[in-house]
Amino acid sequence: MLPRSIQNLIEEFSRLPGIGPKSAQRLAMHLLQTPEIRTKSLGDAVLNMRNNVSFCQKCWHISDQEECHICSNLSRDHHTICIVEDILDVIAIERTGEYKGVYHVLHGALSPINGIGPEDLKIPELFEKVRASVPKDDSTAPQIQELILATNPGLEGEATAMYLQKELNSLPIKITRIARGLPIGADLEYADQVTLTRALEGRQEY
Amino acid sequence: MLPRSIQNLIEEFSRLPGIGPKSAQRLAMHLLQTPEIRTKSLGDAVLNMRNNVSFCQKCWHISDQEECHICSNLSRDHHTICIVEDILDVIAIERTGEYKGVYHVLHGALSPINGIGPEDLKIPELFEKVRASVPKDDSTAPQIQELILATNPGLEGEATAMYLQKELNSLPIKITRIARGLPIGADLEYADQVTLTRALEGRQEY
Repeated sequence: MLPRSIQNLIEEFSRLPGIGPKSAQRLAMHLLQTPEIRTKSLGDAVLNMRNNVSFCQKCWHISDQEECHICSNLSRDHHTICIVEDILDVIAIERTGEYKGVYHVLHGALSPINGIGPEDLKIPELFEKVRASVPKDDSTAPQIQELILATNPGLEGEATAMYLQKELNSLPIKITRIARGLPIGADLEYADQVTLTRALEGRQEY
Repeated sequence: MLPRSIQNLIEEFSRLPGIGPKSAQRLAMHLLQTPEIRTKSLGDAVLNMRNNVSFCQKCWHISDQEECHICSNLSRDHHTICIVEDILDVIAIERTGEYKGVYHVLHGALSPINGIGPEDLKIPELFEKVRASVPKDDSTAPQIQELILATNPGLEGEATAMYLQKELNSLPIKITRIARGLPIGADLEYADQVTLTRALEGRQEY
């Protein structure tokens, strides 16, 4: 029906997350109506996205250097590591401007159902980094002082946080979990049970 | 912050309709995690989308031939022309499998606010085609017998339909407008006033 090249583009768009066949059609029709120079720059951007992009060898954030701009920033607190599931989480936390420590990106969460175990994530790298920071004798304090488990507050994120806590709690390092509760602006009445339970459990004294 | 090539891709994605900065980020991160061969095929699809694609010189639908598969199909009813705003409308009507006539794609709707007048659409081409089909004397019937105005039932679509009707009603050709009323499965209670008014106005005898 439609020309082959347009059908092809629609198929490619529908493979993207959150884009169904209808949106894919709409995107293709939009591009057909935009000047060729703009569609060319989109195509080139997709093809060139991997140019000079690699992962920071310390925290596994994306970077165009061997060490990302956060790890190489000496004014950050390198004693505190915030462990997140993916790169977008780093960006979200950075946007708050409140966090001064560094990160460790796991690139996913444990998910036995999908066959994702610790070895499929950057968990061995985390263990190695954390264990190496603990001195063999008690003369000096470990270089890493706090691990903030900031995986998502869902099933898989909680399981991942629990696993990490279990594996690392023998070390002399403080392990914390980000607070789970009602989001700002939420309505108690409409909150789901689990969130409400967590909000009650996590209550703090005024 | 993020590598230049990734930021570039995010910017390109956010220019697409319906994709905000957050979705653009998510798409870019998704592509970063997919095999390079898949991202390459997306990039190529975007770059090659215009290959062998042109517009049917009769109805302005997209096509890889000079005449689209609908206009060149002799078993279709060439006496009836359905006038639509864009290509996706043709696809939607074709999907019903009910319409046997041909089309004319306007490539938009009249919109004085956005400076879109008849000359910016395929309206002159429509007038020419329709007028040419009317024979100079009354000896034969015009080749085109019905024009179905199937522009969208919004402000601009209605204005476009009204304009076309006004310009063409002196010709001996039947001009109809698609029915506007309650969509199937809708709830009268929740229908907006205009839809309900149209549904009442358009009532038909049982």
